[in-house]
Amino acid sequence: MKTTSNRSKQSRKDMEGAAGNGLVDRRAFLRGGAAFAAAITGYSFTKSAFAEPLADDPWSKVPGAVSPAYEKRSHYEEKIVRTLSNPEGEPRTQHARTPHHLLNGTFTPNGLHFTIIHAGTPDIDPDKHRLVIHGLVKQPLVFTLETLARYPMVSRMTFVECGGNSAPFFAKEPIQANVQALHGLVSCAEWSGVRLSTLLDETGVDPKAKWFVAEGADAPALSRSVPVKKALDDALIALYQNGERIMPGNGYPMRLLLPGYEGNMNVKFLRRIKLIDQPSMSYYETRNYTQLLPNGMSLQFNFLQEVKSFITHPSPGMGLKGAGLYEIAGVAYSGNGRIARVLISADGGQSWTPAELQEPVLSKAFTRFRLPWKWSGGPAVLQSRAWDESGDVQPTRAQIVAARGQSKGTPPVTAFPGQHYNAITTWAVDAKGEVKNVYA
Amino acid sequence: MKTTSNRSKQSRKDMEGAAGNGLVDRRAFLRGGAAFAAAITGYSFTKSAFAEPLADDPWSKVPGAVSPAYEKRSHYEEKIVRTLSNPEGEPRTQHARTPHHLLNGTFTPNGLHFTIIHAGTPDIDPDKHRLVIHGLVKQPLVFTLETLARYPMVSRMTFVECGGNSAPFFAKEPIQANVQALHGLVSCAEWSGVRLSTLLDETGVDPKAKWFVAEGADAPALSRSVPVKKALDDALIALYQNGERIMPGNGYPMRLLLPGYEGNMNVKFLRRIKLIDQPSMSYYETRNYTQLLPNGMSLQFNFLQEVKSFITHPSPGMGLKGAGLYEIAGVAYSGNGRIARVLISADGGQSWTPAELQEPVLSKAFTRFRLPWKWSGGPAVLQSRAWDESGDVQPTRAQIVAARGQSKGTPPVTAFPGQHYNAITTWAVDAKGEVKNVYA
Repeated sequence: MKTTSNRSKQSRKDMEGAAGNGLVDRRAFLRGGAAFAAAITGYSFTKSAFAEPLADDPWSKVPGAVSPAYEKRSHYEEKIVRTLSNPEGEPRTQHARTPHHLLNGTFTPNGLHFTIIHAGTPDIDPDKHRLVIHGLVKQPLVFTLETLARYPMVSRMTFVECGGNSAPFFAKEPIQANVQALHGLVSCAEWSGVRLSTLLDETGVDPKAKWFVAEGADAPALSRSVPVKKALDDALIALYQNGERIMPGNGYPMRLLLPGYEGNMNVKFLRRIKLIDQPSMSYYETRNYTQLLPNGMSLQFNFLQEVKSFITHPSPGMGLKGAGLYEIAGVAYSGNGRIARVLISADGGQSWTPAELQEPVLSKAFTRFRLPWKWSGGPAVLQSRAWDESGDVQPTRAQIVAARGQSKGTPPVTAFPGQHYNAITTWAVDAKGEVKNVYA
Repeated sequence: MKTTSNRSKQSRKDMEGAAGNGLVDRRAFLRGGAAFAAAITGYSFTKSAFAEPLADDPWSKVPGAVSPAYEKRSHYEEKIVRTLSNPEGEPRTQHARTPHHLLNGTFTPNGLHFTIIHAGTPDIDPDKHRLVIHGLVKQPLVFTLETLARYPMVSRMTFVECGGNSAPFFAKEPIQANVQALHGLVSCAEWSGVRLSTLLDETGVDPKAKWFVAEGADAPALSRSVPVKKALDDALIALYQNGERIMPGNGYPMRLLLPGYEGNMNVKFLRRIKLIDQPSMSYYETRNYTQLLPNGMSLQFNFLQEVKSFITHPSPGMGLKGAGLYEIAGVAYSGNGRIARVLISADGGQSWTPAELQEPVLSKAFTRFRLPWKWSGGPAVLQSRAWDESGDVQPTRAQIVAARGQSKGTPPVTAFPGQHYNAITTWAVDAKGEVKNVYA
């Protein structure tokens, strides 16, 4: 939201001086040991090592398990799963949401990457699958996986976010749910594949081509129109996801990757790319992803997932146990490019402190932000606010609601608006350490 | 190997001018479309799209599968596994090797990260597991997973390599095996956790402490001595691997991570860190990882995994099908820091061309390198050679054998030497497109 950046730039300098309600200044933390140790006074440890020897646990006394050919998570971790909106596979859309509150680092493991699929995941034989590029080209071509593998490849970390992620925040009253339910339709992965521009060099492009329509091999043949400009910029035919072949739910054996553009356009099970002179006005670009505005106008072909951040630790359902030091952590990302800064408030936006950004900060990828916080044990209101390198900043909820409207429904939110919510998220911590979703 | 860098620096400039046997100059490639299209003349495509419509595949005509709570690979990919040295779990070491020839990108997915375990993988209850830091500290402390989670965390991409990786290349005659068998004991992941230095700030360090011994909770209580200097530099108590909790085979629920140091020192199932004034002379530092040299001396406490690279595509067993354009790709890494450059030869080292390095190039992490290659269909001898930012360069095999000796055995190689092989790997391509391991 460009509209808020002037105000925010003005107040940015003021924000940096303050660190209310226990936030530990990042620069003090970076100075190292002494300042940091001082900040965690009162932090309770088990000190029984003084009094008794460390017990030998039962698993240290017996031979362990055989290494499997494909490593699996510990059975203690099997409860960490995606939440499913349609676990019986009824004839409607299925959502699988990422449990951000139980992950760490800068990208999403393949087992837990969010997926949305409209008629189930097709079981595609990779040897029989073909990618066709045709339409306004000089030489239509058919590509197999084997031919694609011979082209120069690239790898890039990129988030993919559903345009409808975070829609619950358009609800009039704050919905009490965890970060997985509220923000779980965004994930980040390293995608490797062939640049679409490389393939278009092969086919040649008719100068009349301004758009291309990408079509999937799933039963609904999901299709979206994309400007040719994006194809020649950073669009990728992704074949690998985090080092191994792309997951079925993410488009096996190949998907279109349009870094920074709404998830639905990153067509999975990619089968055809047809170059055309105007958008195809397909179902998803005219229905779901055209946004009606309060003034009666509509936002169409609004592709960009704008700058956003949210706190994953702590977050609803992941309460605090006793006063003392905690790490506030979360993810920030922008379809415009790199994250420039993330500020954190523990007092509902009265004062702000810069968070540490995990290096390397990559364009259109998750940036993990972190800040030590000494919780007093009293009420606190946590917020994060991100800026990207283009100068864009997350709006407040009030600002985005003023521009886009507010949903009258209660969950599940089906009434408009429901798209491209990127405003500040607010978690309220009470004296018991419980965390709630609030509007501030 | 510092010894080779002078010679190599001298010849580096000469190397860059040449591009023998079909290597496509990276700068020509970067200039874009025209130069690239010219390079792939003769590349065979299926052009049937002209003659007949694209068939609708059976999976496009029926509803697909239900999204699972934890996404799994396509059943077409289930053959891509680690190779196991001891699949029945006999009472000896188990190795599970990474299939580098079937992966892409810059790190290893968790299912396929290499592991070595000496008495099987313990089944550790994370709620009961403890980490103790004691010995020459001011305040011994016991940490639970819950207390560790409250400390500031960091994430970093880091390779881990067994000191014995690539040992087959010490054999007198080239062993015919694929890159998984030859180089499969190295992998790369993003590890997230708490800096060991942060915890040592809490315990305080007695000035007499020069080393610490790290001990695992597996049945052999594997332990290694590490200089305190490394603890205060970049050592990590890793809790997460590629975004989710660390895998059982990689030390669940926590491991020591010593970026750039030999794999065995990165103690898994980490249970105790004891600060001491001299090394503990434990089993693995006195037996396996002390290297006998041809001159009768031995290399002890030789921790660093030095600069290395190998070509994964093409590689033995992954032959070429017909002349034309291919991508030569591989991984490079160094325990010293960042990879500075990788040169590729297609004529057995007579001429060299710089490879493209996938950005971001990170310290002590895999760097994916790539170069387009127009295979003539005739014999070719492929090599990669990496330099790191410290100026170190991969030695030739002749150089490392002169310094360390040569094994007299045939596979499995059990005689010394068998450690820290980082010399140039050579793949010979014959006129049929078959790829073999050769010495050059």
